[in-house]
Amino acid sequence: MQRAICLAKRGHFTTSPNPRVGCVIALNGEIVGEGFHKKAGQGHAEVHALKQAGSKAKGATAYVTLEPCSHFGLTPPCAEALIKAQVSHVIAAMVDPNPKVSGRGLELLAAAGITTQFGLLEQDAIALNPGFIQLMTKKLPYVRCKLAASLDGKTAMASGESQWITSPDARADVQRLRAQSCAVICGAESVIFDDARMNVRWDALGTLKNSYAEADVRQPVRIIIDGKNRLTPDLAIFKTTSKILLIRHAIEKSQTWPHFVEQVTISKAVDSEYVDLSLLLAYLAQQGLNDILIESGAKLAGAFINANLVDELVLYQAPKLIGSDGKSLVSMPTIIKLSEAKILDIRDVRMVGKDIRITAKFSQ
Amino acid sequence: MQRAICLAKRGHFTTSPNPRVGCVIALNGEIVGEGFHKKAGQGHAEVHALKQAGSKAKGATAYVTLEPCSHFGLTPPCAEALIKAQVSHVIAAMVDPNPKVSGRGLELLAAAGITTQFGLLEQDAIALNPGFIQLMTKKLPYVRCKLAASLDGKTAMASGESQWITSPDARADVQRLRAQSCAVICGAESVIFDDARMNVRWDALGTLKNSYAEADVRQPVRIIIDGKNRLTPDLAIFKTTSKILLIRHAIEKSQTWPHFVEQVTISKAVDSEYVDLSLLLAYLAQQGLNDILIESGAKLAGAFINANLVDELVLYQAPKLIGSDGKSLVSMPTIIKLSEAKILDIRDVRMVGKDIRITAKFSQ
Repeated sequence: MQRAICLAKRGHFTTSPNPRVGCVIALNGEIVGEGFHKKAGQGHAEVHALKQAGSKAKGATAYVTLEPCSHFGLTPPCAEALIKAQVSHVIAAMVDPNPKVSGRGLELLAAAGITTQFGLLEQDAIALNPGFIQLMTKKLPYVRCKLAASLDGKTAMASGESQWITSPDARADVQRLRAQSCAVICGAESVIFDDARMNVRWDALGTLKNSYAEADVRQPVRIIIDGKNRLTPDLAIFKTTSKILLIRHAIEKSQTWPHFVEQVTISKAVDSEYVDLSLLLAYLAQQGLNDILIESGAKLAGAFINANLVDELVLYQAPKLIGSDGKSLVSMPTIIKLSEAKILDIRDVRMVGKDIRITAKFSQ
Repeated sequence: MQRAICLAKRGHFTTSPNPRVGCVIALNGEIVGEGFHKKAGQGHAEVHALKQAGSKAKGATAYVTLEPCSHFGLTPPCAEALIKAQVSHVIAAMVDPNPKVSGRGLELLAAAGITTQFGLLEQDAIALNPGFIQLMTKKLPYVRCKLAASLDGKTAMASGESQWITSPDARADVQRLRAQSCAVICGAESVIFDDARMNVRWDALGTLKNSYAEADVRQPVRIIIDGKNRLTPDLAIFKTTSKILLIRHAIEKSQTWPHFVEQVTISKAVDSEYVDLSLLLAYLAQQGLNDILIESGAKLAGAFINANLVDELVLYQAPKLIGSDGKSLVSMPTIIKLSEAKILDIRDVRMVGKDIRITAKFSQ
């Protein structure tokens, strides 16, 4: 199963919105076939592994990181393929997170006389697909918020100078975060003032370039929150061809946008200057965008965090001290008691070049 | 030598202002004697090791983490003891950092026909005694600044509520920092508003209690910067018996202080509300206080950092977000360009309970 999980990770940057899945087929303690899911519309992990195993699949054990599917999607159901190949045992790390079909794949296999089990390395399997699982169980995307600051939590000088507070290594790491996400959310201000393009630049992916080809780069959908209709088609971001959703209160008809730009109306929140952020996330979930990265300034990030809409914080800290006059990392309404502070649970801390990267989950 | 360095660490909380030193005596590849320096006035590492080795020291090799001393201090010179015991080889990890006596111990040994070497695991030996070495080479103490904040660099709510932003584990870790320091510096405000006592509480030392006895706890000298003569003898800190230096511009004669309180006058800095902090550190160096911990609020810490007087930052980060209205970690004069930010070099990052501890050195 460990091997199957390693295989699943090969699809880290390419499968979404589909889940990352790996499969190993073993006969008499020897691996006879293995595979992983690479891209939506292409073969599932089980299909690749069965093809490799050929006739050796008969009587073998299949280890799969996710319960084999029981329904026709873009490809035929994997449970049927396993039955046809006459495997003896199927061990799934986890059952399908979709409550409507959960367990159906294993039932189909059991009905055909195959021994089934699940739960082996379940936590590792869950960690492969936070977005896919959250969409299935909560009908919401998994939301990561990326922030970067000095050790004392400042993002910029009082003067406003801020670009490149972190090192090139940290910025390459952010490219990796983008590359694994279905969509990136930013505010109109970043697009206007930083002239940000918010796309994945293959040449900025560092060592990742060794493990997947430029043609396999899947650009995340770029979502720009522009409640005040401030954006104009001449900005740099609209010169880069990949899907953009312009989130506005009302559609602006006087401007002509490139074909990859779509205006979406979301009503304004009662208590904020932004569109209703929960409505926005519900809309994105409907679009199948299950793994979302927020890359924004202190105000928009603070609004998402304050509304408890963020699952995970990825914080890059540059080894610098800027002092109390610098600009703060997160804007949130004044809290009076320490018990009102947002609480997180640190999951990972490591160096990325000279910077520290902290990954933490919000306690909700 | 690795064993000698491990032994030296046993004196981590007790030797200062003396250096931490370990010694191993080996004959034919077998350890025949070992020792470490425990406390000023007590036997040096070499003396303990020679005593244990007895007659087996003859012809043996002595590994010492610091060049054996050549002068009479509180105890007789170790170089002579090694000569008398007729060891054949002496390997020192580093020479004495005091430029006036550096190399003299090894010369004395060589003159007696003993083979000498130095430089083995030198970096590890240097790391044992940052305070001792800095005092010898720069006539200044090694200064650590401890700070604690939320992930977004806030130390308190806008309301002022702040106590216990970090976890009990982090606070026990701070007790360890105190226990290893010659002196702790704080401002009058912490003493007045937090009623801080700034001493080492043995029962708060956690697992450290297993490795040294309550009687061995060496209380750091408590240094309170009180330029405005605001402190009065009734405060909690003056009820705890261990040395206090009250740093003021002028001695206040109308008040009666306990016997362990000494008033020291240091002139006021030209450009700050505090006493001249470089003069203060030079004074502390003269007193032999070589390893100093600053535990203060944002203003005093910022004044030390801004004057480039801090060697090391120890930052505890609680997994919380407080928002932009919280109080900032470090007050420093407004800087205009990012290139004026204080730059650090991260040396260690680890979890302390649920909090993160970052240790970083200032680039100077």
